[in-house]
Amino acid sequence: MKRILVKFAPKSIGKRIKICGWVNSRRDHGKLIFINVRDRSGGLQIIFRLTPNNKQLATIAQKLRPEWVICVEGEIKKRPKGSENPEIETGKVEMVAENLEILSKTAKKLPLDISKKELKVKLSTLLRERSLTLRHKKNRAIFRVFETVLQSYREIMKKLDFVEIKTPKIIGTASEGGANFFTFDYFGKKAFLAQSPQFYKQIGVGVFERVFEVGPVFRKEPHFTTRHLNEYTSLDAEVGFIEDFNEIMDELEKVIKFILRSIIKKNQKALKVSSPEKPKISKKIPQVQLREIRKIIKEKYNYEFPENSDIDPKGEELAGKWAREEKNSDLLFLTHYPKSCRPFYTMPDEENPEETLSFDLLFKGVEIATGSQRIHKPKQLIKNIKEFGLNPKDFKFYIDTFKYGMPPHGGWALGCERIVYKTLNLPTVKEASLFPRDVKRLIP
Amino acid sequence: MKRILVKFAPKSIGKRIKICGWVNSRRDHGKLIFINVRDRSGGLQIIFRLTPNNKQLATIAQKLRPEWVICVEGEIKKRPKGSENPEIETGKVEMVAENLEILSKTAKKLPLDISKKELKVKLSTLLRERSLTLRHKKNRAIFRVFETVLQSYREIMKKLDFVEIKTPKIIGTASEGGANFFTFDYFGKKAFLAQSPQFYKQIGVGVFERVFEVGPVFRKEPHFTTRHLNEYTSLDAEVGFIEDFNEIMDELEKVIKFILRSIIKKNQKALKVSSPEKPKISKKIPQVQLREIRKIIKEKYNYEFPENSDIDPKGEELAGKWAREEKNSDLLFLTHYPKSCRPFYTMPDEENPEETLSFDLLFKGVEIATGSQRIHKPKQLIKNIKEFGLNPKDFKFYIDTFKYGMPPHGGWALGCERIVYKTLNLPTVKEASLFPRDVKRLIP
Repeated sequence: MKRILVKFAPKSIGKRIKICGWVNSRRDHGKLIFINVRDRSGGLQIIFRLTPNNKQLATIAQKLRPEWVICVEGEIKKRPKGSENPEIETGKVEMVAENLEILSKTAKKLPLDISKKELKVKLSTLLRERSLTLRHKKNRAIFRVFETVLQSYREIMKKLDFVEIKTPKIIGTASEGGANFFTFDYFGKKAFLAQSPQFYKQIGVGVFERVFEVGPVFRKEPHFTTRHLNEYTSLDAEVGFIEDFNEIMDELEKVIKFILRSIIKKNQKALKVSSPEKPKISKKIPQVQLREIRKIIKEKYNYEFPENSDIDPKGEELAGKWAREEKNSDLLFLTHYPKSCRPFYTMPDEENPEETLSFDLLFKGVEIATGSQRIHKPKQLIKNIKEFGLNPKDFKFYIDTFKYGMPPHGGWALGCERIVYKTLNLPTVKEASLFPRDVKRLIP
Repeated sequence: MKRILVKFAPKSIGKRIKICGWVNSRRDHGKLIFINVRDRSGGLQIIFRLTPNNKQLATIAQKLRPEWVICVEGEIKKRPKGSENPEIETGKVEMVAENLEILSKTAKKLPLDISKKELKVKLSTLLRERSLTLRHKKNRAIFRVFETVLQSYREIMKKLDFVEIKTPKIIGTASEGGANFFTFDYFGKKAFLAQSPQFYKQIGVGVFERVFEVGPVFRKEPHFTTRHLNEYTSLDAEVGFIEDFNEIMDELEKVIKFILRSIIKKNQKALKVSSPEKPKISKKIPQVQLREIRKIIKEKYNYEFPENSDIDPKGEELAGKWAREEKNSDLLFLTHYPKSCRPFYTMPDEENPEETLSFDLLFKGVEIATGSQRIHKPKQLIKNIKEFGLNPKDFKFYIDTFKYGMPPHGGWALGCERIVYKTLNLPTVKEASLFPRDVKRLIP
């Protein structure tokens, strides 16, 4: 008999079907054993009757333990009135087992009981026992949302006429200078793990005008925060032929709104598991210059972050609070970051050359994207590279690109895990990564 | 005036529009300059008239050089009879320039003329001058096909009810043992760059039953061939609850056929540029055991590859030739590889334990995918790890997975660049990578 998914059980009342999955939980009740079986489509209650003319089946059924992998054949019946379970989608039916096959058993003792509504384990356990904890309902829900972010990003990017590219993660030139690179030996040469596809997506503008990439990026940053990962999935884009700096933010606004709306549309089940508050999305994402938000936060919350510097996490949190309270928006663009805290390829603001045509996008007070207009004239670029104390020779192929004719352009990097983290109000971004990498964590 | 794409020019006859793009080529003809402008949607002929009442425009137009980035405003007119150009999609119209803006100039001399129908440069030049060579029509076509492979893979995987995952590329355990890993220091620990998402996608089977991933993989293999890259895009999948080994190949067959048909459907323009022969796709992909194909090749082509070993490139080529000639198929499954040339997690064949339930998928005589059923019982896995001379302690989190209950499963890794390489009959797989990594090539 061919297996069918448990979600089809309610349509099979009176029929004999075969289902396969994991023993999610077991409850013994006199001469009955109730097994909740979990497959990729949901859960289903199975009843084993321990009757004398059923001896062989009963003997095996009594051995069943959580996470054993089984196939069961039996008839689907309506549950008796009053015994329906509204918490599972198949809760109006159950299977009366007639045949049982054990595909795989488990070790005698499992480190965790994943059938509980809440796992309630320490973060270290949650991440160490990933093979098991990921099977918990809440974690499966997180990675359904993760998948929606990936899919909806690509969908909106194609609608906006971008071309998807794949660029190398092993690179020979440190994209932004700086020391936060993992380095290694590449057949006798020094190689870096890409912090971003920056140079390559800009080259892509010369080829396809508008390009995007979904891929891993790597940061050798010794952070111990709830917001950082040393490897994450970056949703990158680069937009050619922009009229001005604002066009980049306009495109990103379409993108992030589409992603957040897709999550609400596609992940109702997952959102029910976590039940976070629906994000506040205003008609137009508010934009504030960094030096303005500095004043606002000082006035309103009596907090000051350092001048001529990047905003700090506390500042971002308060900026997010302000946007929510005053602008009714969980999204906020901060713009015009000082030159000193942006990479060398960032376009300076002509009106105030100490500031740049750059932005961060905050979501609930956490940066989820960073972007800017880029310098597209080789002379200006070389000048800037030198001003940043770097050597133009190290960036030859990149500089050459701009000698071959490049339109005004800019782009962004959007963090996939951070979107999931803040959408679901998780305690840490690490819970939004299947196998997170941090300073202490390389396994699993 | 707002820019529109040149592909809309034929619908704008009699109207004044603005287009932006690169000067693809320039041709002077008496008092006329013909510029072919290229944007992401195609090319358009622009005419500049060098007349006295047009002096300012004429002066700038005379400076234009290939790859300068410009915006032009002017009226779209039908071309005079006989001067249509059937080779470009806008070939029935042209723009008479009225206004010209130069967004970006180039260096005095470009290293290559990319307006030529054929670039005709050495591979080393093609790959060194990527910022320019990628703009050539043929190369743009290649990466349109590349994008189709990515998109169609994800589309068919979702149709087949797989969940998309992202797994770490920085790993603490060498997936398959062996020495072909790039290694580096990760905050004081030894880390590896993932050769494949093998362990993680198998863990994913325990969570979602069917998972897939599109991501980079890294191989420290000192190859100098037309078929190898040191970093490439792997289209991975893992299928839980398989009835038997053949089910994996059945799923992969649906996938590869969908991809090849998508290319034919979506990339007519790109295929016209390269005009490769349409691949032969038979109703059912033929399957031959490795030891059978050995006999066939020996008999038919008088060529022998070593016994109890992997098939060699010459063998694969002849196997592909045989499949094409005898089975009318460019696709061929070879199965049952010897245990010694497959990783430790490969399920041995019960009927002949020296062989494994494994396969390669050849396309036009080149391996494009490799796959197998995996061992899903921890005892058997530990035994095999030891037999391969490895230490089970190094694989603790992986082995634990199988102690938590795992169904029979298997999967594949499909090489994105190789599909493009063989579909378009490119001289080397390196041409199917935007910025290929090989033993000598780390830049650009």
